[in-house]
Amino acid sequence: MKILVLNGPNLNMLGKREPGIYGSNTLLELEKSIQDAGGKLGVEIRCFQSNYEGALLDEIHQAADKGFAGIIMNPGAFTHYSIALRDAISSIDIPVIEVHISNVHAREEFRKHSVTAPVSIGQIAGFGFYGYEMALNAMKEYVKGREA
Amino acid sequence: MKILVLNGPNLNMLGKREPGIYGSNTLLELEKSIQDAGGKLGVEIRCFQSNYEGALLDEIHQAADKGFAGIIMNPGAFTHYSIALRDAISSIDIPVIEVHISNVHAREEFRKHSVTAPVSIGQIAGFGFYGYEMALNAMKEYVKGREA
Amino acid sequence: MKILVLNGPNLNMLGKREPGIYGSNTLLELEKSIQDAGGKLGVEIRCFQSNYEGALLDEIHQAADKGFAGIIMNPGAFTHYSIALRDAISSIDIPVIEVHISNVHAREEFRKHSVTAPVSIGQIAGFGFYGYEMALNAMKEYVKGREA
Amino acid sequence: MKILVLNGPNLNMLGKREPGIYGSNTLLELEKSIQDAGGKLGVEIRCFQSNYEGALLDEIHQAADKGFAGIIMNPGAFTHYSIALRDAISSIDIPVIEVHISNVHAREEFRKHSVTAPVSIGQIAGFGFYGYEMALNAMKEYVKGREA
Amino acid sequence: MKILVLNGPNLNMLGKREPGIYGSNTLLELEKSIQDAGGKLGVEIRCFQSNYEGALLDEIHQAADKGFAGIIMNPGAFTHYSIALRDAISSIDIPVIEVHISNVHAREEFRKHSVTAPVSIGQIAGFGFYGYEMALNAMKEYVKGREA
Amino acid sequence: MKILVLNGPNLNMLGKREPGIYGSNTLLELEKSIQDAGGKLGVEIRCFQSNYEGALLDEIHQAADKGFAGIIMNPGAFTHYSIALRDAISSIDIPVIEVHISNVHAREEFRKHSVTAPVSIGQIAGFGFYGYEMALNAMKEYVKGREA
Amino acid sequence: MKILVLNGPNLNMLGKREPGIYGSNTLLELEKSIQDAGGKLGVEIRCFQSNYEGALLDEIHQAADKGFAGIIMNPGAFTHYSIALRDAISSIDIPVIEVHISNVHAREEFRKHSVTAPVSIGQIAGFGFYGYEMALNAMKEYVKGREA
Amino acid sequence: MKILVLNGPNLNMLGKREPGIYGSNTLLELEKSIQDAGGKLGVEIRCFQSNYEGALLDEIHQAADKGFAGIIMNPGAFTHYSIALRDAISSIDIPVIEVHISNVHAREEFRKHSVTAPVSIGQIAGFGFYGYEMALNAMKEYVKGREA
Amino acid sequence: MKILVLNGPNLNMLGKREPGIYGSNTLLELEKSIQDAGGKLGVEIRCFQSNYEGALLDEIHQAADKGFAGIIMNPGAFTHYSIALRDAISSIDIPVIEVHISNVHAREEFRKHSVTAPVSIGQIAGFGFYGYEMALNAMKEYVKGREA
Amino acid sequence: MKILVLNGPNLNMLGKREPGIYGSNTLLELEKSIQDAGGKLGVEIRCFQSNYEGALLDEIHQAADKGFAGIIMNPGAFTHYSIALRDAISSIDIPVIEVHISNVHAREEFRKHSVTAPVSIGQIAGFGFYGYEMALNAMKEYVKGREA
Amino acid sequence: MKILVLNGPNLNMLGKREPGIYGSNTLLELEKSIQDAGGKLGVEIRCFQSNYEGALLDEIHQAADKGFAGIIMNPGAFTHYSIALRDAISSIDIPVIEVHISNVHAREEFRKHSVTAPVSIGQIAGFGFYGYEMALNAMKEYVKGREA
Amino acid sequence: MKILVLNGPNLNMLGKREPGIYGSNTLLELEKSIQDAGGKLGVEIRCFQSNYEGALLDEIHQAADKGFAGIIMNPGAFTHYSIALRDAISSIDIPVIEVHISNVHAREEFRKHSVTAPVSIGQIAGFGFYGYEMALNAMKEYVKGREA
Repeated sequence: MKILVLNGPNLNMLGKREPGIYGSNTLLELEKSIQDAGGKLGVEIRCFQSNYEGALLDEIHQAADKGFAGIIMNPGAFTHYSIALRDAISSIDIPVIEVHISNVHAREEFRKHSVTAPVSIGQIAGFGFYGYEMALNAMKEYVKGREA
Repeated sequence: MKILVLNGPNLNMLGKREPGIYGSNTLLELEKSIQDAGGKLGVEIRCFQSNYEGALLDEIHQAADKGFAGIIMNPGAFTHYSIALRDAISSIDIPVIEVHISNVHAREEFRKHSVTAPVSIGQIAGFGFYGYEMALNAMKEYVKGREA
Repeated sequence: MKILVLNGPNLNMLGKREPGIYGSNTLLELEKSIQDAGGKLGVEIRCFQSNYEGALLDEIHQAADKGFAGIIMNPGAFTHYSIALRDAISSIDIPVIEVHISNVHAREEFRKHSVTAPVSIGQIAGFGFYGYEMALNAMKEYVKGREA
Repeated sequence: MKILVLNGPNLNMLGKREPGIYGSNTLLELEKSIQDAGGKLGVEIRCFQSNYEGALLDEIHQAADKGFAGIIMNPGAFTHYSIALRDAISSIDIPVIEVHISNVHAREEFRKHSVTAPVSIGQIAGFGFYGYEMALNAMKEYVKGREA
Repeated sequence: MKILVLNGPNLNMLGKREPGIYGSNTLLELEKSIQDAGGKLGVEIRCFQSNYEGALLDEIHQAADKGFAGIIMNPGAFTHYSIALRDAISSIDIPVIEVHISNVHAREEFRKHSVTAPVSIGQIAGFGFYGYEMALNAMKEYVKGREA
Repeated sequence: MKILVLNGPNLNMLGKREPGIYGSNTLLELEKSIQDAGGKLGVEIRCFQSNYEGALLDEIHQAADKGFAGIIMNPGAFTHYSIALRDAISSIDIPVIEVHISNVHAREEFRKHSVTAPVSIGQIAGFGFYGYEMALNAMKEYVKGREA
Repeated sequence: MKILVLNGPNLNMLGKREPGIYGSNTLLELEKSIQDAGGKLGVEIRCFQSNYEGALLDEIHQAADKGFAGIIMNPGAFTHYSIALRDAISSIDIPVIEVHISNVHAREEFRKHSVTAPVSIGQIAGFGFYGYEMALNAMKEYVKGREA
Repeated sequence: MKILVLNGPNLNMLGKREPGIYGSNTLLELEKSIQDAGGKLGVEIRCFQSNYEGALLDEIHQAADKGFAGIIMNPGAFTHYSIALRDAISSIDIPVIEVHISNVHAREEFRKHSVTAPVSIGQIAGFGFYGYEMALNAMKEYVKGREA
Repeated sequence: MKILVLNGPNLNMLGKREPGIYGSNTLLELEKSIQDAGGKLGVEIRCFQSNYEGALLDEIHQAADKGFAGIIMNPGAFTHYSIALRDAISSIDIPVIEVHISNVHAREEFRKHSVTAPVSIGQIAGFGFYGYEMALNAMKEYVKGREA
Repeated sequence: MKILVLNGPNLNMLGKREPGIYGSNTLLELEKSIQDAGGKLGVEIRCFQSNYEGALLDEIHQAADKGFAGIIMNPGAFTHYSIALRDAISSIDIPVIEVHISNVHAREEFRKHSVTAPVSIGQIAGFGFYGYEMALNAMKEYVKGREA
Repeated sequence: MKILVLNGPNLNMLGKREPGIYGSNTLLELEKSIQDAGGKLGVEIRCFQSNYEGALLDEIHQAADKGFAGIIMNPGAFTHYSIALRDAISSIDIPVIEVHISNVHAREEFRKHSVTAPVSIGQIAGFGFYGYEMALNAMKEYVKGREA
Repeated sequence: MKILVLNGPNLNMLGKREPGIYGSNTLLELEKSIQDAGGKLGVEIRCFQSNYEGALLDEIHQAADKGFAGIIMNPGAFTHYSIALRDAISSIDIPVIEVHISNVHAREEFRKHSVTAPVSIGQIAGFGFYGYEMALNAMKEYVKGREA
């Protein structure tokens, strides 16, 4: 099973970016921990980060053709306004799980609203880097359940 | 480690209640699966369901004294209006994780807003019964991280 | 045919409570008049009033198992905020009719909005105690129509 | 006792119009069933349908002079915006009962708001054609109570 | 100088309609008092009342061709929602003055908003029947000022 | 193929009405140009304009029985509040295309919202009289596609 | 009969202030025209303008004791936010008429809302300086009617 | 004179609950201080706390029959959504004073709105435990004034 | 201890102003009763009323320098819009208690919102003149508590 | 005459993307049909699709210099939030026509609002691929009219 | 060139007022620094502060007559509600620049909205006392540009 | 000292783009004038414009590492919706000043709201190209102040 992990804008700044909210580890460390978790689950992982909405759209569009069984995405700030990302998720047949490092429901009012969650299968928020591992487990469960 | 799992109103109807949304398994089966997951993690679980807001408040208030390290709660409909539950969570020192069986962000507008999530450490929504197991794992990670 | 009649919070105060709005007859008198109307229709009635949301939820959940063919409910103030009641109605297979003694549409703005009516089969408001008799008739018609 | 039954815009399309919502019987059949119900109650009925707001206003204005003791009205779409209808109801001394065939509270958001209900004595919604018979009964009760 | 005086829906009910708000004189008496005021000013008056939005639109459209120098209109309930009336006023070159018998700003919230006033030259509200005489005077002033 | 072209309130004022927005040609000229376009397409056209909401409802209701394959409608101001028109469109089986002479999206805020467009097959706005010809073409395409 | 005419903030700038909206005549000229109109009506006028909300409050409070039978007030910008002015009007027994030189309903959205009109007997807007004369006439009518 | 003092949900957590907001003294200490203040005033006090909305409703309903002259209530979180509590207050004849330990107007937006204050005689917020003593004094004054 | 008591706009009208809401006693009587209460508490009182926002700002700014230990303020209508008063309270170090004679939460919607309460230590509303005495007691308690 | 046809995000997914809404033909087929229509009209077409907002901005900016007489654009999801696209349209002198394949007015609430339509000359929605051909015709008409 | 510098309510409290937001320097020091900056630019400065809206209005009205070429104003709290100030700015012909010491966009929601900025030539916020010097420079540029 | 000057979408169109609002000078001329101003201040400037949100994010992320002491940014249309830009500003330690050529507060309602200003140190709007020079001066002041 191959899973695509997408990180949106500003997540390349992990470690430097508001460490009180996002922690002090870097994107490299995050991606390493996801690879490790994937290894434990026997799942092949590809990690991709971009600050370009268009680049994320391209990745989502091509995911199924590249053989990914699902996408785990932290859309970053795009969560709150990128209807294009929402439409991209609706345009594909493989499942998407939304992850947020921080508890978006406990921050500014505008962070409580997600335009992408309604077309994802679920949302995980507030568990730091560990949330990606939770998403990996959930994706594996989901895909197995779907195949069954 | 002991974890308290609280289920709010109408979750006793699992299996009968809108199976297209909540699945066809019962509360008993849910609680059994949580106990199993707890067993695998070496965590002692107590499950409690009530249709009474007051009874849930009582359980939350007493949780720390009873030795629980954290609470996993599916507040059901109370998620959207019980400020009393919110205040109860704020009144205790142990962490709370919010779980929803369905993807509340993909349903009626009023289900997108949680009054309890802002005072919880995180929210998991859309992964069916498996969401409780995810929460157990996350709680264990969280408590370990806190102790470290 | 057995019908369950539920009255929500403060309806035990009928006769004392704002008689200009709710009239001067008591809950006992209301329940007597419903029993009389049931007698005329050949319908067995059980009346239940509670100030506890949880108690109303329990009654709704058990209604079908107890052999009730439908529920007539005046949710009182819960009409306007108890999403738990709404979910309870959605969780059962027997029909619910919503009754209000006063014309809720002619009072404070917040009384115009019902969270329970969208999952009921209909709403009757403004006809005093007689509204319950109307609901009994409508329930009998509805159940007959359904069986046909 | 004479009762005026008014049906507003598009109700002449009953039978053809969205039968999943309004049923497959025609306006003629509706009016016949109301006449039958009136006969049983010993009440003389006049039915009138118009797609013209002005024609409905005229009927309401003249109702008392023509000897009607009350008006049963399904304002159709006018329910949601015709303040003129509201003012017409306020301008007369005989009671008005509002009827809706479908459960307007369970449909589009804008159908939940009635500009006419606050000046009517009550509202009945969701009981199909039978709702008119309920209204007839309620009107008779109301007028008797008023005379008493 | 010829002035057209239009009265909208329910104004034919003057004298019967909510006399605490609109007074106890009839439309006939109102029109008589306007004719008298017109006489004193040397202005020819035509009064027209209709409960049909379409009839009012027709009158507005034809007013200039019929030689009217201006229109005094009490749109009644149409004030608050008839964008068609608004567009009719915008479609003609002669001035329109809006009159209300009652002080609409002191009543229900929805009566404070006029869709027609923004395209009229002014609004007079709260002066009873005398408001029409005020409007006649103002119209004469306005037309004289325009000609100058 | 027969197509019904409906024009709503104030469109009889074309040529006089705000020519900066609607142009200086009359309704007669508009209807002539539509007939010409119909002729080129081999489609029989009936044009009807009314300032009465009720008259437009009647036309819509009878269109199918009169053999029209579709309706092209410019509801004028009714676009923004006539839920009765919306319901009329929903009550029939033939398709409706909404046309606006001006670009309603570039004018007052309230003109951006159409209550009729959600039940039409599409909306064309901003192309002057030519928009009707576009609608004719689209209707022919649509009906052909439907038949195929 | 003595009438108090109050002008609020910025009305001392008449003649200089946005002449396209307020005209090119000065406050002195306005007050002169009001005095003239008063003379014709046999009414004694006192004119007062202030840019201080407090000074206007003082004048309103003392008006009855100083023998004024009514107040004509153009509250200027205070119309839209000075609840203190509203309360001052409510605190006295003599009538207040609100006047606006421009048609406030045809300008910025915030100018449509008056906090003072609901406690005044009426509002006149859009008739330039002539509006004050209209108000004088109306006040005389009103006071005579009240005495009668 | 007997006064009933009601404390709503989570007030049993006083001392532990957000001490920066609610102080570090317990409910027992609060009730003791109220009893002391009652003793000084010669007023008999009964204190009752519950996390159950239904239990509070029951107490309010029975208060007059039990001889209480008034109720001092801190509804806690119920302040902001329990329309049932509001209706209970409206259903009785004895006065209710609302008390809040913290200054609810200085916290989250939703805490500024009270559904119960409009039917209470007054509200006291922000004075810690001392607010209950203020309420006792005010209740005694109020009852004396009423009797006088 | 010296306490400053500020009364805002229209409070000089007490006794005349809407006696059904504010009672029939005058400002002089109010200030006398406050002085009496101050005497009993051993607190020196200075009372000041103004209809000028600026004058109230000046008093607040100078209060600490003049040796006042706290301010009791009834901002009157300024409560609802004077952000300047709010900023003045924030600009000083001595505590402010907000008092309202009437229960502002039971009146017009706009009276429920206070821009000054969030920066005051508390609010007392609905207890008539006695509310000032309550505030005096509370201020003495507060200042003592602060010194302790 | 040269026309630029721009397609925004996710339109490269045509054929795969929600075929119930967008049909089962691909972008290649869409562009082919547009080229065909252009051929019939004697208009040279350049088609461009991008998932990058910036790329679309670049194309719009350069269109006039490249000799295009107008732009037909389906902004996809950008319709609803890309103020940058709106400003780009405002920054050029050649006309833009907005096209939507689906009837955006009949879908989610947020799809009804277009930030780009107010600065376009018109909008066409709901006619599938055929809408582009309609736009081509309209653009040709428009440009001819402008030149005339 | 002469420039008028106006400071609104509470700015006399600079140095004492919330120093974390406004700094610890006084109004005197602010005015001294502005004079210094004026000296460097060869611009004559008059500084004026008032807590009275009316006094600020008077100054604005007279500024042109007193020979000022422009006004730099920090309206303080009036920024957010004084429509009177807005109208005063509109009533004069010399330019106004709005200055805020703090970054109002980073504080409470209500501070983001300025009623005066839309009629000023620009706004400068967040640069402390230095913002006034920036405004002086900008005013000089602006006036030079205007004269050119 | 090195300062980065970022210009967002459509600013490459300066000179062509709505010259009534943005002036008739080009981006090249703007950047030249900024370089000149930098030269006078002894500050090294790098100017960068992009229509790609992602490219601006990249520049912001790398600014500190490239030795820039601060960023001056005109986010163009992104000001109003790019939460990604907001988060980028929050993710770095060097200060950002927001500049707008036009007075955004005096244009469409949506231009008044900035999602980036709350995390910038200040905002300058309405001073044309000169605003960038103001920002340069302010940045130098700010950085000096910070170092002191």
